[in-house]
Amino acid sequence: MGKIEEKLNQMKVEIPSPTAPKGNYCLYVKQGNVLHICGHIPSTSNGLIKGKVGKDLNVEQGYESAKTCAINILGTIQSAIGTLDKVVRIVKIVGFVNCTDDFEQQPAVINGASDFFVEVFGEKGKHARSAVGTNALPLGIATEVECIVEVEE
Amino acid sequence: MGKIEEKLNQMKVEIPSPTAPKGNYCLYVKQGNVLHICGHIPSTSNGLIKGKVGKDLNVEQGYESAKTCAINILGTIQSAIGTLDKVVRIVKIVGFVNCTDDFEQQPAVINGASDFFVEVFGEKGKHARSAVGTNALPLGIATEVECIVEVEE
Amino acid sequence: MGKIEEKLNQMKVEIPSPTAPKGNYCLYVKQGNVLHICGHIPSTSNGLIKGKVGKDLNVEQGYESAKTCAINILGTIQSAIGTLDKVVRIVKIVGFVNCTDDFEQQPAVINGASDFFVEVFGEKGKHARSAVGTNALPLGIATEVECIVEVEE
Repeated sequence: MGKIEEKLNQMKVEIPSPTAPKGNYCLYVKQGNVLHICGHIPSTSNGLIKGKVGKDLNVEQGYESAKTCAINILGTIQSAIGTLDKVVRIVKIVGFVNCTDDFEQQPAVINGASDFFVEVFGEKGKHARSAVGTNALPLGIATEVECIVEVEE
Repeated sequence: MGKIEEKLNQMKVEIPSPTAPKGNYCLYVKQGNVLHICGHIPSTSNGLIKGKVGKDLNVEQGYESAKTCAINILGTIQSAIGTLDKVVRIVKIVGFVNCTDDFEQQPAVINGASDFFVEVFGEKGKHARSAVGTNALPLGIATEVECIVEVEE
Repeated sequence: MGKIEEKLNQMKVEIPSPTAPKGNYCLYVKQGNVLHICGHIPSTSNGLIKGKVGKDLNVEQGYESAKTCAINILGTIQSAIGTLDKVVRIVKIVGFVNCTDDFEQQPAVINGASDFFVEVFGEKGKHARSAVGTNALPLGIATEVECIVEVEE
């Protein structure tokens, strides 16, 4: 087991096995030493985290949703490169927040993903990011997070 | 004529000549062996596919709109590298769906682009992707699709 | 002082010092010879440019907001690589416009960033881009612009 995997064990975070995409696309494409990772959804063993932040969900619930997207991204990274120890850098994330038209705290929501990546990877987890709102996401989910990751060759 | 161009011929898909951008930007920028391609719009010889999916258009019409964006992207790739045979991989797409606040089938809409890329390029056409909703797109179009493509040097 | 910095001086554009991010992320990550730059906001010495384009702001005001995002991006690039003379190419921008559901002129708004980059960098400033609408942005800002920049090693 890798060191990052041990750390996740201690954090009591279970890395989910990625679900195969239902369409003609991949969970990731490796281009050179970079993984381009799909927009990931907040699926848990109890189902999806759904709803609009600012109406159905508050900021804390949105934060959990973004963190859940990040946990699922780890599953995809692991399936791509075997062990999370081979992550060189979380380069960039884009976080979309399904929210009301007057909601203004998208960064506080996407911190759920950012804080988690830094907790897990330390400095290697610090990334560039965009946090934006949207009026609608697939299946009514609360957040969607995509990612660019540099990995060992 | 390239093999991919022949295939498109058989599929009776006509690759449009790209229209020059109206602003201070390019249809693509080649950085190393990677094309960064603009958000493309669903323009056809009969005009633009406009409207909000979930109200003005149904999922099937949204699917056609996303496919049309993908066809237009082929025109840009061809103008960039001469022949589509030089495509190494469709790496990543982001698909924006102009939709109502309660619309939840963005992936089914963006499948219009994904299915088309895989039909044309086979395994090379399989990409990472994000499919998200938006409340408004340029000129009222139904979908906008951007793309990262690895090409032969 | 670099040539680009001199030019900005002549244009009477003051490059702001970037503000440290408030969360667990970075203003940029350098991956190889590429800067992945955060979604930047339209902050000025007089505060943020806020509001929805199509209701609170018109296209010209949205244009200024996008230009302000681009000016702030220059501050981040400069802090990353010392002088703007080391910019090889503005590769790609994504511009999000906080707007009403019926607003259709996102490209005219994001031209504020595109025109500025080309004014400053000439051909090196010509980029691929996506311009999309959104129902809500952080702190109620009018525009958010992210960027990929190729730089000298």
